[in-house]
Amino acid sequence: MVQTEQITFYTHAYSVYSHRVHLALEEAKADYTLYTVNIWDKPAWYAAKVNPIGKVPAITYGGPKVSPDAPSDASVKLRESLVLLEFLADVFPDAGLLPADAVQRAQARLFMRDADAALYEGMKAYFFAREPAQKLLDALERVQRALPPAGFAAGAQWCIADMAAAPFLARIVFLLEHDLGVYPAGEGAKTLALVRGERFARLNRWFADVQAQPSFKATWDEAVQFSVWSKLPMFKRN
Amino acid sequence: MVQTEQITFYTHAYSVYSHRVHLALEEAKADYTLYTVNIWDKPAWYAAKVNPIGKVPAITYGGPKVSPDAPSDASVKLRESLVLLEFLADVFPDAGLLPADAVQRAQARLFMRDADAALYEGMKAYFFAREPAQKLLDALERVQRALPPAGFAAGAQWCIADMAAAPFLARIVFLLEHDLGVYPAGEGAKTLALVRGERFARLNRWFADVQAQPSFKATWDEAVQFSVWSKLPMFKRN
Repeated sequence: MVQTEQITFYTHAYSVYSHRVHLALEEAKADYTLYTVNIWDKPAWYAAKVNPIGKVPAITYGGPKVSPDAPSDASVKLRESLVLLEFLADVFPDAGLLPADAVQRAQARLFMRDADAALYEGMKAYFFAREPAQKLLDALERVQRALPPAGFAAGAQWCIADMAAAPFLARIVFLLEHDLGVYPAGEGAKTLALVRGERFARLNRWFADVQAQPSFKATWDEAVQFSVWSKLPMFKRN
Repeated sequence: MVQTEQITFYTHAYSVYSHRVHLALEEAKADYTLYTVNIWDKPAWYAAKVNPIGKVPAITYGGPKVSPDAPSDASVKLRESLVLLEFLADVFPDAGLLPADAVQRAQARLFMRDADAALYEGMKAYFFAREPAQKLLDALERVQRALPPAGFAAGAQWCIADMAAAPFLARIVFLLEHDLGVYPAGEGAKTLALVRGERFARLNRWFADVQAQPSFKATWDEAVQFSVWSKLPMFKRN
């Protein structure tokens, strides 16, 4: 776990994709500077100097230690959460972010790929596009099927595959608990009962194991989540 | 380059995604058995015993050496071309399928991600969906912008990032040369002139460097490609 270069992590609590990288940084016990980007009103320097696409997460790696809002030209700028997870696994080879075995690594990457597509579609459909809960439940079913009968996505230890899926699960459960989303008021509790039901026993056991990880606890704050999501204009109830 | 397990590679010349994996197997000088799946009329055992999704490429890894059409339950079954490229880089760590440096590895993965999405959309739009050439040219522009000023996608040596993009480029140029696609007859040559034009000088230099690689030459057969694509019902001219 010898880290020789500075890492600055650009993030926002809203972002599933940022949360993935946050989990890996914590799990690797990386020495990093966290900077919250105002994603609703992005500062001009962010796209100009950090991520040309303007999205979080991004990291700067190497170069001098500078203030996050004045990034150095000498640092490498990296983006895309799944690329960043692999990068951190490479930079911290002893942190167990990926299994050592090639087959398990392939299983981890397959899980990431399958879960990523399913959860994005499922979450968007139900919470943002007023589609029936079925699409969300189908997505959860697909993720559950991709899990092995016991343990984490690719072995006994959790790895970047689990870290890629967990931020979606956390937000899905949280939003349903608080009845947040574009679905009719009051529907969240009913959908939550389905999500917590026997049909998803394996998925819920996996998620409970995820929630027990210290780096999950260190990167998930319900009060912060509530302040972010409850202010989302499209989620407002009246 | 010590390979201890058998590898069976399920492929088809039509498939961009299979070609990626074929390149990596050749580049790694892997000992493997190639099996061409009849993708137009798939044998039932393929989805049942190799890839539940039914697509190529897939590989079986480990287990006893058996006939490819009677896969052993003892082998690991892996799918998804980008997962397979990473897997082969892990199994053959000395083959240079990925750079050793973490930043270059991240740049390779970013290129793969960006090029994958762009080329799939561009190729589908122009060759299969009768959309104007502009979408294809825009995709090529995006790939060109993702290349560094010189060398390959992530350094002086080609790597799985280049292997992920090359099969698209090869087919795009080949199809235009033979006026194959759903665009109006005779348009291929015009679009080809644009693709070969000054606007894409960097991309064409990169593609020429790719074509010079022995493993590219070993995996690309124009006669086979012609027999596959010219028989595609939707491409038939009359």
